[in-house]
Amino acid sequence: MPIVFVALVWVLRLGHRRERDKRLTTHCALVSRALGAQKFWYTGDKDSSLEESVRLVAEKWGGKFEVSHAESWRSVVSAARKTGCRVAHLTMYGEPFEKAKLKPPLLLVVGGKKVPWRVFEESDVNVSVTSQPHSEAAALAIVLYSLGLKPDFSGWSVKVEPNPRGKTVLGGSKKYK
Amino acid sequence: MPIVFVALVWVLRLGHRRERDKRLTTHCALVSRALGAQKFWYTGDKDSSLEESVRLVAEKWGGKFEVSHAESWRSVVSAARKTGCRVAHLTMYGEPFEKAKLKPPLLLVVGGKKVPWRVFEESDVNVSVTSQPHSEAAALAIVLYSLGLKPDFSGWSVKVEPNPRGKTVLGGSKKYK
Repeated sequence: MPIVFVALVWVLRLGHRRERDKRLTTHCALVSRALGAQKFWYTGDKDSSLEESVRLVAEKWGGKFEVSHAESWRSVVSAARKTGCRVAHLTMYGEPFEKAKLKPPLLLVVGGKKVPWRVFEESDVNVSVTSQPHSEAAALAIVLYSLGLKPDFSGWSVKVEPNPRGKTVLGGSKKYK
Repeated sequence: MPIVFVALVWVLRLGHRRERDKRLTTHCALVSRALGAQKFWYTGDKDSSLEESVRLVAEKWGGKFEVSHAESWRSVVSAARKTGCRVAHLTMYGEPFEKAKLKPPLLLVVGGKKVPWRVFEESDVNVSVTSQPHSEAAALAIVLYSLGLKPDFSGWSVKVEPNPRGKTVLGGSKKYK
């Protein structure tokens, strides 16, 4: 079996609130998957329906992607450091992310409400995508896109083929590839 | 007074649902502003509180940014075409956006639920940011970022100065600059 080297990127979303953040946290998870992260952690409320919906997408659209709740952000930072990850906290207060020369292995931390001050202190770098208020899903997307990861969606049962004028969808019910 | 040439980029968000989409549409609007679009249109439910919250951000953080409800997407497409805009519909079914060589003047259309088929037909190009399901705010962010616009946030009353290790916030109550 060939050895595949995967660029290790994890994402940690802080302080999920089950009702208020459901869609945004789901978007953060799907962005992570679509742009090549392997694992999505979140703290805050444990949310089985969030996890289930992301898992269903991953199962249908292929690739290996995990979503897990963590009791504390520190445990995720610690686990990431053990795998050699640099910890980059995405915040509008940080330095422009382009300056930080981010590359895998990497843990990207995105905030929710009330990011603990310790996250600023204990991250290796605090990076911004513009210094303006906008969206954690957007900031995460831009940073992940800039890494140029090449996600592997093998095992998909549904796949879209790019089409400038319509929709081309392969699969649906049975496994291809 | 010097003549300033602004790279014209408008964004149109389709099918806003007042309750379900409030935060996501707000994020799309704030992403549009932060990354240099001048105007954000939306169809679907008229939502004064969405408009108000985006306007408050724009007033506080500077620059010129407008948010408007439109009864029909066609009226926005038509107005954009009159200003010379190319109409790019962001959809996971489209061709990779990098291929479309997008540049201003531009109207970027992002979907909500049930994008009318006519949007696919009447857009100049249908472009994707990955062919995977993720987030309209994220797709919009990546495309806008790739345009390399230089937004002007003059008139701000609050501004963040990049700081790799903390928060540096200028202003708050009185106008600077």
